[in-house]
Amino acid sequence: MIRIGIAGYGNLGRGVECALASSKDMELVGVFTRRDPSSLKTLTGAKVFSMEDAEKMTEDIDVMILCGGSANDLPKQTVEMAKLYNVVDSFDTHAKIPQHFAAVDASAKESGKVAVISAGWDPGMFSLNRLYGQAVLPNGHDYTFWGKGVSQGHSDAIRRIDGAQDARQYTIPVEAALESVRRGEDPELTTREKHLRECFVVAKEGADKAAIEKAIVTMPNYFADYDTTVHFISQEELDRDHAGIPHGGIVFRTGTTGLQNEHRHLIEYKLTLDSNPEFTSSVLVAFARAAYRMNLEGMCGCKTVFDIAPAYLHPESGETLRATLL
Amino acid sequence: MIRIGIAGYGNLGRGVECALASSKDMELVGVFTRRDPSSLKTLTGAKVFSMEDAEKMTEDIDVMILCGGSANDLPKQTVEMAKLYNVVDSFDTHAKIPQHFAAVDASAKESGKVAVISAGWDPGMFSLNRLYGQAVLPNGHDYTFWGKGVSQGHSDAIRRIDGAQDARQYTIPVEAALESVRRGEDPELTTREKHLRECFVVAKEGADKAAIEKAIVTMPNYFADYDTTVHFISQEELDRDHAGIPHGGIVFRTGTTGLQNEHRHLIEYKLTLDSNPEFTSSVLVAFARAAYRMNLEGMCGCKTVFDIAPAYLHPESGETLRATLL
Repeated sequence: MIRIGIAGYGNLGRGVECALASSKDMELVGVFTRRDPSSLKTLTGAKVFSMEDAEKMTEDIDVMILCGGSANDLPKQTVEMAKLYNVVDSFDTHAKIPQHFAAVDASAKESGKVAVISAGWDPGMFSLNRLYGQAVLPNGHDYTFWGKGVSQGHSDAIRRIDGAQDARQYTIPVEAALESVRRGEDPELTTREKHLRECFVVAKEGADKAAIEKAIVTMPNYFADYDTTVHFISQEELDRDHAGIPHGGIVFRTGTTGLQNEHRHLIEYKLTLDSNPEFTSSVLVAFARAAYRMNLEGMCGCKTVFDIAPAYLHPESGETLRATLL
Repeated sequence: MIRIGIAGYGNLGRGVECALASSKDMELVGVFTRRDPSSLKTLTGAKVFSMEDAEKMTEDIDVMILCGGSANDLPKQTVEMAKLYNVVDSFDTHAKIPQHFAAVDASAKESGKVAVISAGWDPGMFSLNRLYGQAVLPNGHDYTFWGKGVSQGHSDAIRRIDGAQDARQYTIPVEAALESVRRGEDPELTTREKHLRECFVVAKEGADKAAIEKAIVTMPNYFADYDTTVHFISQEELDRDHAGIPHGGIVFRTGTTGLQNEHRHLIEYKLTLDSNPEFTSSVLVAFARAAYRMNLEGMCGCKTVFDIAPAYLHPESGETLRATLL
């Protein structure tokens, strides 16, 4: 059994806890938190430890799955934890991945551990499909669409507007853009042509809804470059109809082959996810298995999904995989 | 530059020749054939050698891409060539992969070369998606659908019928089955419920078309278990409208997460290919790059797509991949 620790117990940590229950070759040793451990009750009754105890449990845990946030937690936490454990994180600030990689790599090489960063669906499964697509069809174009799904960052941005009480924002791919890609037109798409934004907003009592709507649709970076629709609803409606955290999207690779590029090909990888954090957690757990096995074979340092042979992710042996899945 | 040889010059060999023209880090040294080399003219003017010359050119070629057939060529050829070269093949007789792997592995371990087998789209890219899907969503179901596309084996089977002059058979997924999977119904599907077979047949002059049709739709293994439609057309129509070799298909993974399995997820990987052999060739070329690089790092033995870290397939460095694709 591969012994797992979970560092951080938000949506992602709870998702990992659930995913481990479906993994026959892994067991959860405990959850590590910066809160008072006695204040935290886990879904499965898993033990709770203080984050400070992590350094004392290196004999008990094979892989620590880091479930903190990319903005404030992981840049330090992954580097620190990789000194003690094989680790996996879902660091998703794309622009900062190179510097995160460098810092974690130095730490994991020193400790002789394997540290997998940026394992989730984007970065993660989507990245894999961008890479495989380019490798197989070098003459072509990439497209990544997100949604339909909830963007936590955009929902938060709305909540910060004066008069807004609560909000849920959905990112939605523009159907005409998807169809153009599928038809092989290799379109050049602006930000506005790729995605719509749909917002469900609860206004505080007496708030100026027109002002809130204007503040949303003109907000730079978040909304101004998109066609955005705003619906005002009650808190009850928001809680009842928009409680889930669905997400997903599509990675396309289009490309041509043949001496005159006369043959077209389309690769489409599509995710439709009821729960964004639980799917991300499931990816983290599979890569935790890989981290453990690679370290057993003597590997160390920082790895991404690009550096990991797929067989390491699956509980079955290479022999069984060849006989049943190849 | 990675120096490539092509062994066998049918559709697949020509496809590799074209694909190499799109690979900036690879060059084609020549084509090896069992025919009289002087009788063979290549698409790009590449040199042609006799298959017997292969053993003399180990200093000139880094990877030999094997483009023979799975039934008669590859079981011997891959084993023999792996004694001399890093090799890649597209061996696609799924049931015989374990024994092919064992024979090639022994050969490649002795020579210290890397031999990649069963690289194409099924086995190949589809296998990868089956593996990733199971690893990430262990509570779930797999579905592989093929088509719409030409099945060479089924077309050949029709041509062998008395009175049939020529034929082209399309395998087509049943739309209702695809929709049921997408709706998350986890259907149990019979052979008949998954795929249709559509046949375009040229009858010889004076042949009994009703007898041909009956021979097709009742043919065991090939057609009897399917809903099959037969269209009689002229040779001109067949040549004009059915000259291409399109194919494709979909690998689905459905699965649930959450403590009560309350969240559903759907992964859909879809290929739409104008040219089955040219896409397969493109996959072979990407895995040839991997074979060369892995051997440079000291690896040897038989590998499948499951054993190869994705980064080996892409011409760019790990650093560039992390910065641009992750």
